[in-house]
Amino acid sequence: MTDEQPDHGADQQERVAVIVLAAGQGTRMNSDLPKVLHPLGGVPLVGHALAAAGRLEPQRIVVVAGHGAEAVRAAVAKLDPDAQVVLQDQQLGTGHAVAQALPALDGFSGKVIVLYGDTPFIGDDTLAALTSHPADVVVLGFEAADPGRYGRLVTGPRGLERIVEWKDADAATRAIRLCNSGVIAADAGLLRDLVGRLGNDNAAGEYYLTDVVGLARDAGRSAAVVTCDESETLGINTRAELAAAESAFQTRARALLLDDGVTMTAPDTVFLALDTVVGRDAVIGPNVVFGPGVTVESGARIEAFCHLEGCHISQGASVGPFARLRPGAELGGDVHVGNFVEIKNSVLDEGVKVGHLTYLGDADVGEGTNIGAGTVTCNYDGVMKHRTRIGARVFIGSDTMLVAPVSVGDEAMTASGSVITEDVADGGLAIGRARQVTKPGLARRMMAALRQKKKERG
Amino acid sequence: MTDEQPDHGADQQERVAVIVLAAGQGTRMNSDLPKVLHPLGGVPLVGHALAAAGRLEPQRIVVVAGHGAEAVRAAVAKLDPDAQVVLQDQQLGTGHAVAQALPALDGFSGKVIVLYGDTPFIGDDTLAALTSHPADVVVLGFEAADPGRYGRLVTGPRGLERIVEWKDADAATRAIRLCNSGVIAADAGLLRDLVGRLGNDNAAGEYYLTDVVGLARDAGRSAAVVTCDESETLGINTRAELAAAESAFQTRARALLLDDGVTMTAPDTVFLALDTVVGRDAVIGPNVVFGPGVTVESGARIEAFCHLEGCHISQGASVGPFARLRPGAELGGDVHVGNFVEIKNSVLDEGVKVGHLTYLGDADVGEGTNIGAGTVTCNYDGVMKHRTRIGARVFIGSDTMLVAPVSVGDEAMTASGSVITEDVADGGLAIGRARQVTKPGLARRMMAALRQKKKERG
Amino acid sequence: MTDEQPDHGADQQERVAVIVLAAGQGTRMNSDLPKVLHPLGGVPLVGHALAAAGRLEPQRIVVVAGHGAEAVRAAVAKLDPDAQVVLQDQQLGTGHAVAQALPALDGFSGKVIVLYGDTPFIGDDTLAALTSHPADVVVLGFEAADPGRYGRLVTGPRGLERIVEWKDADAATRAIRLCNSGVIAADAGLLRDLVGRLGNDNAAGEYYLTDVVGLARDAGRSAAVVTCDESETLGINTRAELAAAESAFQTRARALLLDDGVTMTAPDTVFLALDTVVGRDAVIGPNVVFGPGVTVESGARIEAFCHLEGCHISQGASVGPFARLRPGAELGGDVHVGNFVEIKNSVLDEGVKVGHLTYLGDADVGEGTNIGAGTVTCNYDGVMKHRTRIGARVFIGSDTMLVAPVSVGDEAMTASGSVITEDVADGGLAIGRARQVTKPGLARRMMAALRQKKKERG
Repeated sequence: MTDEQPDHGADQQERVAVIVLAAGQGTRMNSDLPKVLHPLGGVPLVGHALAAAGRLEPQRIVVVAGHGAEAVRAAVAKLDPDAQVVLQDQQLGTGHAVAQALPALDGFSGKVIVLYGDTPFIGDDTLAALTSHPADVVVLGFEAADPGRYGRLVTGPRGLERIVEWKDADAATRAIRLCNSGVIAADAGLLRDLVGRLGNDNAAGEYYLTDVVGLARDAGRSAAVVTCDESETLGINTRAELAAAESAFQTRARALLLDDGVTMTAPDTVFLALDTVVGRDAVIGPNVVFGPGVTVESGARIEAFCHLEGCHISQGASVGPFARLRPGAELGGDVHVGNFVEIKNSVLDEGVKVGHLTYLGDADVGEGTNIGAGTVTCNYDGVMKHRTRIGARVFIGSDTMLVAPVSVGDEAMTASGSVITEDVADGGLAIGRARQVTKPGLARRMMAALRQKKKERG
Repeated sequence: MTDEQPDHGADQQERVAVIVLAAGQGTRMNSDLPKVLHPLGGVPLVGHALAAAGRLEPQRIVVVAGHGAEAVRAAVAKLDPDAQVVLQDQQLGTGHAVAQALPALDGFSGKVIVLYGDTPFIGDDTLAALTSHPADVVVLGFEAADPGRYGRLVTGPRGLERIVEWKDADAATRAIRLCNSGVIAADAGLLRDLVGRLGNDNAAGEYYLTDVVGLARDAGRSAAVVTCDESETLGINTRAELAAAESAFQTRARALLLDDGVTMTAPDTVFLALDTVVGRDAVIGPNVVFGPGVTVESGARIEAFCHLEGCHISQGASVGPFARLRPGAELGGDVHVGNFVEIKNSVLDEGVKVGHLTYLGDADVGEGTNIGAGTVTCNYDGVMKHRTRIGARVFIGSDTMLVAPVSVGDEAMTASGSVITEDVADGGLAIGRARQVTKPGLARRMMAALRQKKKERG
Repeated sequence: MTDEQPDHGADQQERVAVIVLAAGQGTRMNSDLPKVLHPLGGVPLVGHALAAAGRLEPQRIVVVAGHGAEAVRAAVAKLDPDAQVVLQDQQLGTGHAVAQALPALDGFSGKVIVLYGDTPFIGDDTLAALTSHPADVVVLGFEAADPGRYGRLVTGPRGLERIVEWKDADAATRAIRLCNSGVIAADAGLLRDLVGRLGNDNAAGEYYLTDVVGLARDAGRSAAVVTCDESETLGINTRAELAAAESAFQTRARALLLDDGVTMTAPDTVFLALDTVVGRDAVIGPNVVFGPGVTVESGARIEAFCHLEGCHISQGASVGPFARLRPGAELGGDVHVGNFVEIKNSVLDEGVKVGHLTYLGDADVGEGTNIGAGTVTCNYDGVMKHRTRIGARVFIGSDTMLVAPVSVGDEAMTASGSVITEDVADGGLAIGRARQVTKPGLARRMMAALRQKKKERG
């Protein structure tokens, strides 16, 4: 969004607004979740269209919601707070959907691009070509490997002549392989005019956005086709198609990381999110899952079987195997997080080591501190969450329970097996455990008695 | 099995018995385990034939075991307690194997179908077609992509003429692509008669079941072919073939779940069992392994890296990542089981939360209870296992050891780091830990001393 | 290496020396790590060439390092301490690289084979054919599916006539599909002579090793081609090619294990190292990662989601799911290591059980001992590591902290939740925990107070 840019800057390039159609039910998904909220690359489908739209730095983005509108509205608010969501109460066709969006573009002049919430792969170059094309109406087309029942784009010397639906097409028209993606770009004023004149005199009784091409040509306006690769226009209608799209997304995202100099032993087993950032010469082992919001600096090391979300991993840090970093985990340089360790909403300064079987939640840990195996920050008292503060160069003994809110000072130490309920000052040693007592021979007598008991019970 | 159905019900449809041949050594598996006990989709290979047989609701099922007969007998007893197992001492061919099974069908009249323990994919429609076909002898054939050395089915105007082994076939016969799967269906009385007349006058000195076709035709009885897709007759002879079969099984099972409306980010990384049941809109992350006996209700959520076996997950529950549910784990609605948590033989009522690093074994947990990180039910005393009972709305503090048998009442609480050896009444607070003592400056002095010691040691 | 073999033994077969060229920068890898140190099958790329060379039992191995020479030298020292590393300061071509290696072969007579550090897949049969071929100069060629810009091998009645670079080739020569792999074998004396006469009168100003063929033929010496499959000569230039090579390596390694009678449910998800050894009828679940140095005996069982490195697993042992065995973990027969368990540098005798959530590091555990859930060997005091010794048939209660150095005698027992700081004699029971105190009704009052507090805070 360009809200914060001075207007004269925006004037130098084409002014753009984007409408994202996201009202469909997605019946074939066999789901209560609106189709555009199904996840792809860790974000809802509609997030991909919004991200592509955002990279155009548009004046406005309008999302048309229908089925599951409240859920869509909530998701869009998270994905792009600047996007407006309008409601299409009845599903009366794409032209009707765009008509619902137009009031939200009142006062906007420039180019309007209509995208789809279930079409996640349209590339930036394609959008740039649509945006910059001089024709009054520009339709995005593709050469279909198997044109099937797609609408056909009939072109002539003056550009795009008309769009013919498959069921209305004669044999010659059906032989055309240039197909309609549904994506369209048009001048805002013209679009308002044309959409206002759409009819629904067809079998389905729907208002088709594609009819604006014919209306434009009838009015003596120019229409053109911009083409893209078929893979960019891939729409998603079933869970199998969604799984195939996820696979395509992952293949692309992995290849980009390899090109960027990331080391992955088995890229096919690494699952990335739309916003994953990984630096050069970072190493990622097999079977690593990235949720949204992860950044990994150059030279960091993620071992096999890690699950990462909303976290930052600095240079020289090593994570896993079998580690889980949850939102708010910030790992400084050379931090080590080992196996069966969970970190949530915690900042670990440079050189902190958390090797084994530990839960750190809502904690701050100073540089060079060592956290023993089996340590837990007891951050929940049954009603509220509290924070734990651990200083620098601290030695937290194994199996230390840190009952928050609590703090441990620099260079302090806790004895293994201690429950820490009171603050520990710098350099102090905190002990909260009973002294060992050993009873000679008692183990043998107890085991014999237990075996006897079992025998008697049969 | 139809034992519990009234006879007049069974009379209305064809009476069926099934013989499953499962005596082969499987030399090419390079294994001490009998071939039919190698796992596919989480159950022994022979279990797939038994499951297919069972769906025919047969009067009787007879399994012919040979190599590793005792292990096969034990496995069959678990898979289908109604199936009889007979022994084929010597491996004298398929005809001989069927002969061993026939005494177990004494008194049965109706149709007998002969299946194979190493052929797991024959579909229900195919079995139905075999069962309902009016011919006296019906052979299951398939059009082979590469007929190779399969036996060929020679058909004529009166149905199946004869089965010709590849080595006995002339060029014209070898050009036939309709091949013999080995599966055969015949009237019980006729089969007894024909099998009794089989000879072993051939190079291998074996009794071939396929010879019953020629004998039937010689006796003026009818013979016919029912065909199926080649993939249904896939037999397994090597570990590579078993791995390919597992892959085929998984591909099919995953597609069925997607069709049923299950959300899977990366279906290729989800491993299902023959009896896995997952409800609509349940979400399954990447890298989830289902052992046998798992049911997941609609809307439950299984995160990445989970290992599930013999458990039930109710609506709204969330599991993982990195969780293991073992047999007898029953999760009520909205239960949360988090990372590095193992649940075995335990019932968790609605809303229970077990977030981190916990082992619950042989436990009952009441609704709304919160189990702190690092909790362990000490269910084994070195000789016997004991049960732990935790009430509703209990707060189990982190690192609580519950030494079973023990019970904690409703709305009770245990202090973090406590070892609970005695029952806690409703609303009570149990503490079993030492009070914290802090020694100022001692940590610094101890670390300095340790560093000095290391230095002296060189 | 044959250093320890008597010379007369070596005389009976061709004497061989190997030069491995490993000086290239690998610019297209987009990495600070020298290309030949990128891992494949768990070892650096150059390790594959060294392993292949080693199987020839050569008199000497010389590695030519350049970019990142010190790192390469250190890696080679670990991979094959007998190999010499020489430095190529400037990258002046393959002929120049071999020239740097020749002084290290002073006094060697026999055959010299030139291999490449980034070409990991040349087979033993191919190397044997190169070694035993009687021609003076032998070049390894391959029929390229797409010859592209490879150099072409021009052959005639007298063997290999010449090698023509693609850019110097006419249409007829470009039509040749027999291509140059770069691998060459020649008599040591001849090679010294020919390499000494190489010129750099070409566009790149480099000394090309391939020119020795022309020089040899000009001098009346014989030259020949040995061919191999194209897959053997696969070189690695980009991370995508490295990932493809890793995939090819894994596919091959998995197939070999299947042939050897190893059971793998989902071989495609098992990652093996170059030196992985697994016995017949061992079972490996999905998603298991083998680092270097793992041996698994026949009949052992590795469940899903395990991470193994530098460890030994004996017959009848079971590991996982979710287990991590680190270097020095030695599991005796019938040992069980369960979920969320890490074992490092520890010897577990026969029948030891470590079921859940445990860290054993630097420990010795006697036969039949049971380690309770949540046990930790506190092996690090903040400065040094110490060892824990646990006897046979010991019962370590859950959540026992063993503060090393410490020992627990045979048939001894520790109470759940104990911190063990002093040695426990045979048969003794050690307790280090506070007695439970229960305060009636206090939990309810505390929770009510907390809820009130939260309410007040808003």
